[in-house]
Amino acid sequence: MLTYSLDPQASTALYDQLYRAIREDILAGRLTANSRLPSKRSLAQHLKISVVTVETAYGQLIAEGYVYAREKSGYFVSPVDRPGIRPALPAPSLPEETKENWILDLRANRMDPSCFPFSVWSKITRNVLSRQDVSLLEPVPYNGIYELRRALSDYLHRFRGIDVDPGQIVIGAGTEYLYSLLIQLLGRDKRYGVENPGYPKIRRIYNANGVDNVGISLDEEGISIPALRSSGAQILHLSPSHHFPTGIVTPIGRRQELLHWAQERPDRYIIEDDYDSEFRFTGKPIPTMQSIDHGHRVVYINSFSKTIAPSIRISYLILPPLLAERFHREFSFYSCTVSSFEQYTLADFISGGYFERHISRMKKLYRERRNAIIQAILESPLAPYVTILEKDAGLHFLLQLSLDVPEETVRAACKQRGFRLGFLSDYTDGSMTAAPNTLVINYSGIDPEQFRRVLEHLTETRNLKMEDGKLLLK
Amino acid sequence: MLTYSLDPQASTALYDQLYRAIREDILAGRLTANSRLPSKRSLAQHLKISVVTVETAYGQLIAEGYVYAREKSGYFVSPVDRPGIRPALPAPSLPEETKENWILDLRANRMDPSCFPFSVWSKITRNVLSRQDVSLLEPVPYNGIYELRRALSDYLHRFRGIDVDPGQIVIGAGTEYLYSLLIQLLGRDKRYGVENPGYPKIRRIYNANGVDNVGISLDEEGISIPALRSSGAQILHLSPSHHFPTGIVTPIGRRQELLHWAQERPDRYIIEDDYDSEFRFTGKPIPTMQSIDHGHRVVYINSFSKTIAPSIRISYLILPPLLAERFHREFSFYSCTVSSFEQYTLADFISGGYFERHISRMKKLYRERRNAIIQAILESPLAPYVTILEKDAGLHFLLQLSLDVPEETVRAACKQRGFRLGFLSDYTDGSMTAAPNTLVINYSGIDPEQFRRVLEHLTETRNLKMEDGKLLLK
Repeated sequence: MLTYSLDPQASTALYDQLYRAIREDILAGRLTANSRLPSKRSLAQHLKISVVTVETAYGQLIAEGYVYAREKSGYFVSPVDRPGIRPALPAPSLPEETKENWILDLRANRMDPSCFPFSVWSKITRNVLSRQDVSLLEPVPYNGIYELRRALSDYLHRFRGIDVDPGQIVIGAGTEYLYSLLIQLLGRDKRYGVENPGYPKIRRIYNANGVDNVGISLDEEGISIPALRSSGAQILHLSPSHHFPTGIVTPIGRRQELLHWAQERPDRYIIEDDYDSEFRFTGKPIPTMQSIDHGHRVVYINSFSKTIAPSIRISYLILPPLLAERFHREFSFYSCTVSSFEQYTLADFISGGYFERHISRMKKLYRERRNAIIQAILESPLAPYVTILEKDAGLHFLLQLSLDVPEETVRAACKQRGFRLGFLSDYTDGSMTAAPNTLVINYSGIDPEQFRRVLEHLTETRNLKMEDGKLLLK
Repeated sequence: MLTYSLDPQASTALYDQLYRAIREDILAGRLTANSRLPSKRSLAQHLKISVVTVETAYGQLIAEGYVYAREKSGYFVSPVDRPGIRPALPAPSLPEETKENWILDLRANRMDPSCFPFSVWSKITRNVLSRQDVSLLEPVPYNGIYELRRALSDYLHRFRGIDVDPGQIVIGAGTEYLYSLLIQLLGRDKRYGVENPGYPKIRRIYNANGVDNVGISLDEEGISIPALRSSGAQILHLSPSHHFPTGIVTPIGRRQELLHWAQERPDRYIIEDDYDSEFRFTGKPIPTMQSIDHGHRVVYINSFSKTIAPSIRISYLILPPLLAERFHREFSFYSCTVSSFEQYTLADFISGGYFERHISRMKKLYRERRNAIIQAILESPLAPYVTILEKDAGLHFLLQLSLDVPEETVRAACKQRGFRLGFLSDYTDGSMTAAPNTLVINYSGIDPEQFRRVLEHLTETRNLKMEDGKLLLK
């Protein structure tokens, strides 16, 4: 008879102790395949435990397949492997959980906590949850909750001159996710053209999704039409209202040419990535290509990561009606990727007018910060050696350094002090060369006072050179 | 000189009115390409508005490319298309925004609002937001915030016997999204094997992602080994602890065989989809394949849509260390798809012990509901005609009807009354036949009293037949 010492005082239930003990004996081969286990009653008597305890232990062993029951003849051991025979492979070491620690990071997409409307957001979230409504818990429609798409459509109409039906809007967890949906919608067999220079992640995402893609060079108006025509691309992915990193705004004439290009063939589409267009500091945002697209060739994409916070993962597509209809037909089996609580919160944030007020406030704040940073540049000892390239828009600008020092020396010298720089050359592929020593300044999260220290240090790099990977005085 | 009547009382700013008027004239061809615009000062005098207003209007026109400035000689009209030439295409109609309205939906994945811990969730959310911490706003690491991965790893250790490092966990917005990441990680060039019958969405997702996939038939222990071997699949996607829809629990012996299969070749992996394993009603959850995988071949995937709510879009992967390391190396450029607020909320919900208590409560509640529904079946006039197939686990079971009526007649008769049914045959592909008239009962969101009405109606279908798409009495 099986004999185990079970401990009624232990934190593990008695049935669980018995189940583990028998499982151990089976896996170790001490109980052999097809051998018979004692009846529940006799084992209970033997171990001085209740029949229910044995029954639950046997039940668990049966459910997991260690034991089988045969009607009227009892319980038997199932044939199983003895895992000891194959030793476990040694586990390779995992990447460490470290955050990069920079004193000042000019590449990062950060924001001040003071910029986030915590109290309004918290109040709205509380209101949403206090409804305790069944609609909060139901699976979210594939394209997002109607209330959010309605609020967005009203907002876009009033503030961006974009007229769309809520049925053309698709809500998703970030633009990167939406790119992968667009690949499914527009076709995995197409060639995707992306801006070169450009935001490097876009290309990595197309690569990770296994679709053919090609960099298309720019002229001073944005995507070059001859380069586009010779690229063989069918889908063009661009940011016409504030190109990253050059800041180019594509003028109306070029936009019309691009739309003509798209209309020439039925499989051509334009993905208009309007990532930071809300932040123009004089006048109003540049109208979208979507709003002058009479041929239904433009898919518009935007997110709330610049306007609210990078940690809020809500983005949206505006599809031309034909594509919206096809998306509904072919891809509405997908679940929406944004939780309903946050969708309802954002819907109320927009329709309550808070979003609009928040954007005005941020515009003012970013304008002041941008001006303070430009002021710091003009007042710094570096001033004679720089040109500022900026279009009065967006959350970054370019700073051209006329230094007789290679980029890598400048980068290394700053890294040594804990300053992280981004150069224009970081955003081009090998096929073209960027203007050297051109810094991309993402200013939204940086403190102008700290930035003065970077400028001082940049000035000092004039006297440095690099030898064998080490920085030396010239 | 340009003459426009501008209205200082209008809701649109004066500069905006002027900008629109000039843009209109350019697009209509009334101002021709390369013609000169009046100077700012003279136009201001002429229209009796301030120079700043004209300057802002010209600035906007220049930014958008309708006008260009030439130093010392003034402002000129850019060459642009006249959009009137190409008429806008008529917009096709959009899918209507309607919800399907069933009186009782046995296919739906619903839950009672009374089951959601609104007050605790609301309290934790408020606490998280009240920290107003910069970490709430920073971009979320690709694999999710550390606090949530840590809380999950502790929970899995204590309650599921799964020992994982937080570095092996990847948080994402729903399992469907995580499948698409896994395709990128395991390889787009592999053949994916899925259960047949099975959850049909899985196959649709592999298809939408353009990867080769094949249905693999089951025997009474789950995935059939000969069928798996002859399928040519390298990746096997399965739910061994509670198969949908049959409810099969794959026993330890078969699990070991599947693990052996995976270890035979370096490119073979098993995706263990553990979607509702928390709900076993006697004993404890079935241990995962992940926990006996000594060869590092199992990727575990689970979500909170069954345990918390389908509208909470948080799921997670557990990767074997080698894959975790490769994921970090190749895919950490991706942004995490779950908002930080909800990740911090869930982290506190788990580490505060609320999740564990919530699961216990739901287990009790679902057991009672399942028993009430089974009771309703046993007491109904249908009782002599049914067999209930259920494994004391999970949120659905099968109900075999011995009715001499075709499935489609049963379905149509119930639809007429507003009852939506799901049959086993809905979950098989054409390559195999399911036991006919076998209902899949998703009971988590249905009211036992209403379910009695479905049972009464099902009994009546015995006297129905279908002719020319109409239901008639036999």
